[in-house]
Amino acid sequence: MGRTSDAKSRLIAAARELIYARGYTAVGVQEICEQAGVNKGSFYHFFPSKQALVLAVIEAHTQQLQRGWREVMSASCSLNTRMHHLFEAAYESQRICANDGGQMLGCPLGNLALELSTHDPCIRLKLSEAFATWTHMIEHALREATTHGDLPPLDVSATAQTIVAYFQGVVLLAKTRNDPTLVKALAQGAVHLVEAAAQAHISPPSKAGIPPTSQTFHIRN
Amino acid sequence: MGRTSDAKSRLIAAARELIYARGYTAVGVQEICEQAGVNKGSFYHFFPSKQALVLAVIEAHTQQLQRGWREVMSASCSLNTRMHHLFEAAYESQRICANDGGQMLGCPLGNLALELSTHDPCIRLKLSEAFATWTHMIEHALREATTHGDLPPLDVSATAQTIVAYFQGVVLLAKTRNDPTLVKALAQGAVHLVEAAAQAHISPPSKAGIPPTSQTFHIRN
Repeated sequence: MGRTSDAKSRLIAAARELIYARGYTAVGVQEICEQAGVNKGSFYHFFPSKQALVLAVIEAHTQQLQRGWREVMSASCSLNTRMHHLFEAAYESQRICANDGGQMLGCPLGNLALELSTHDPCIRLKLSEAFATWTHMIEHALREATTHGDLPPLDVSATAQTIVAYFQGVVLLAKTRNDPTLVKALAQGAVHLVEAAAQAHISPPSKAGIPPTSQTFHIRN
Repeated sequence: MGRTSDAKSRLIAAARELIYARGYTAVGVQEICEQAGVNKGSFYHFFPSKQALVLAVIEAHTQQLQRGWREVMSASCSLNTRMHHLFEAAYESQRICANDGGQMLGCPLGNLALELSTHDPCIRLKLSEAFATWTHMIEHALREATTHGDLPPLDVSATAQTIVAYFQGVVLLAKTRNDPTLVKALAQGAVHLVEAAAQAHISPPSKAGIPPTSQTFHIRN
């Protein structure tokens, strides 16, 4: 039984590594089995299809990323600092990955989202749920900040979505340049998204296009 | 000669359509030839490899997208409106694509960037150049706005990069949800990125974390 469960974990681990490096379509079941040291018959004992395996891979990535997001977003430091930590953690993991393999690999969920959303609605929904979970964590942190008076009662749902989108876009650009430092360099944009959402709540732009004068809002450093 | 050039264009058009819908790795040369009505021998007359074809495909996408970006970014309306038009144009094309095929396909450059940046440095560089061109167009618009006094002299390069990143991330999330309306719903985030960058220039956050009082900056509606 121990051995059986080990084979399943090895298949997921091998698939995670291979698919993260080269994408879902480019990696075959045979190659995954070889890297895991598991025969093809056993593969189909655990996973009825390659789709079932990639769902398990997405689950494993999500669990790991969630632990990281939760750690960063629930830290006792300011929201501003937590936003920076989110990007710094991504920078650090991408820097290591680029140092080790010569190429940064980006966000495993973002990669699969763009590769597979048009292929399979089950995979798309699984990825969409992972992004929703992440968005909820940021929403929670924003709501907490509004409760403590660190932020005005802004639209936490929309603002959290802008942050997740921004993070994904920054990682996409950095991967395309193969330059992990871009993730750190553009971190302040996430703080800007919160600040401007807060500012818009305090003083909505006048219809005439004349900048109003009011208190400026900055989330705490 | 007319016929020859027609075959090449047909190959590029077929590859654009198939790769945009399903990704580079999932589409074979044979299928592209069949859709284009060109035999495989002729394919290799025009393109020494599938890589050469995808470079032509990226070039074709970039040329088309550039025309759209240029049109939007050089319009005589305010920067705020131009930012919204950028997202509305993307929403409109994604809405049509989702209506026609049941699934929004996202940004063809963003899709290939995440799928192929780790596969091939030539393709990665080609995509990186396309993003750089787009960033330069936004930089130009921001610089113009600072010259006209509509914006303070903010860091146009960093701000333009945040906008391109944000756009890509928004389209990624919308594709994962298969919901083109998200592209329109989150457009204001791009305006927020410019507003907050301008605000940070006017009144940098105090180190003590106390929100300073100063004139609020809103880019014109």
